[in-house]
Amino acid sequence: MTTAQLVSQIKQKKSFLCIGLDVDLDKIPEHLLVLEDPIFEFNRAIIDATHHLCVAYKPNTAFYEAYGIKGWQALKKTIQYLNKNYPEIFTIADAKRGDIGNTSTMYAKAFFTDLAFDSITVAPYMGKDSVEPFLAFKDKHTIMLALTSNKGAFDFQTLTVPKQELYKEVLQVSKSWKNSENLMYVVGATKAEYFKEIRKIVPESFLLVPGVGAQGGNLQDVCKYGLSKNIGLLINSSRGIIYASKEKDFATIAALKAQELQSQMKILLKDFI
Amino acid sequence: MTTAQLVSQIKQKKSFLCIGLDVDLDKIPEHLLVLEDPIFEFNRAIIDATHHLCVAYKPNTAFYEAYGIKGWQALKKTIQYLNKNYPEIFTIADAKRGDIGNTSTMYAKAFFTDLAFDSITVAPYMGKDSVEPFLAFKDKHTIMLALTSNKGAFDFQTLTVPKQELYKEVLQVSKSWKNSENLMYVVGATKAEYFKEIRKIVPESFLLVPGVGAQGGNLQDVCKYGLSKNIGLLINSSRGIIYASKEKDFATIAALKAQELQSQMKILLKDFI
Repeated sequence: MTTAQLVSQIKQKKSFLCIGLDVDLDKIPEHLLVLEDPIFEFNRAIIDATHHLCVAYKPNTAFYEAYGIKGWQALKKTIQYLNKNYPEIFTIADAKRGDIGNTSTMYAKAFFTDLAFDSITVAPYMGKDSVEPFLAFKDKHTIMLALTSNKGAFDFQTLTVPKQELYKEVLQVSKSWKNSENLMYVVGATKAEYFKEIRKIVPESFLLVPGVGAQGGNLQDVCKYGLSKNIGLLINSSRGIIYASKEKDFATIAALKAQELQSQMKILLKDFI
Repeated sequence: MTTAQLVSQIKQKKSFLCIGLDVDLDKIPEHLLVLEDPIFEFNRAIIDATHHLCVAYKPNTAFYEAYGIKGWQALKKTIQYLNKNYPEIFTIADAKRGDIGNTSTMYAKAFFTDLAFDSITVAPYMGKDSVEPFLAFKDKHTIMLALTSNKGAFDFQTLTVPKQELYKEVLQVSKSWKNSENLMYVVGATKAEYFKEIRKIVPESFLLVPGVGAQGGNLQDVCKYGLSKNIGLLINSSRGIIYASKEKDFATIAALKAQELQSQMKILLKDFI
């Protein structure tokens, strides 16, 4: 998917919501557990109920890997279901991968070719030659960790290296990498005041923003500093939407939670559409 | 596996060799391709031929994920084969994972519980709360990226933050994390001169060292600065061993290549055994 197609979808749906599909068998409704593939059935119900309210889905690979081969199968069925039934949706493999060149190429093949995701999250620690293999794929997007939403973000990301903080250096340096137009960045909503500085370095790049809801981030604050000419934001919510109810009506309640966020986004987007 | 058991195995085998199982269907002998699970058959042959010469195997997960569910199955069969037939071997899931707390716990479950690896490689970018969930597992080891063997290591890892380089800060800071006795570190062999400084910060920790062979690192140089009182080194070689031959004798040739390294290690270990 091209960035233009993503922006067009955002304008059409008046939403830049991404729903995180972090499926934990301990948290999904009990009536699904008797089915052959409860993870996929849960995802399918959530997707069918919310696809008109969001523009992206983001399965976090950890939750699938934790269930071994069955989990990997559920991940594959989920992305296939999305690509077949909702091809307009932007799909994100939240995998936080990154390794030396030939190994990153294998990861890129796994997620871009075999699973056919539109994008993947990657860690920057190993530098340019660990990220460029992902960037080489046309119309695929590489979402690099910049400033994450967790407490540990202050362990290294905000250290000064020495001209500016590490996360700013990551943003700055990555702009010179080959095919850097395929880069997006992860920036946590819990750090809304940082968006102003971040937009000075990457004024137009799409930012994938976790941390609204459960982690305490605020949508309005993020938009105040983070919206770009092309919108440039994907706001993710996982637990706040998909685990809003553990009853048989879980998908309907998930849709209501998604609708709440989408309604706020519609107001915030009024100058863009 | 405890660190003491690993050290004991090293002394017994007079080897601190780790063999990387980065299986690429384009590189393995053609006669294996007709079998039902060529990746596993390749691994089994390599393992059977080399297990007495090395102390660890390190499958890189990217190579398995690139083949989707079949790849994941081959990974599972490989670790099960190792645990059943060679329980003394230290197993490393080279996965470079790391995410916010609850997600890292899922990754830890995937690799420590479901697949039953002894250790996993993780990226430090997201800080303490992204690594501690791995450290919580008893007798499991978390091998954190410190100074990697690729060119991109100089993009961020060697920046000054501001008292010392980032990778030193990563080493230093991580020593204060909960259960940090379960930490090991990745340090590339291509940077032998750095081991002197690294040993000042982590005098006893085990270091997993990629980059000997294909990437140009030198075993003697690494040992000169890197060996600790407890040996404290695992030297990895992947391509140089497993792809030494593409013929039917590939496992025998792999064993010869492993033997070459083990012979050098035996000499380097003479003061320890």
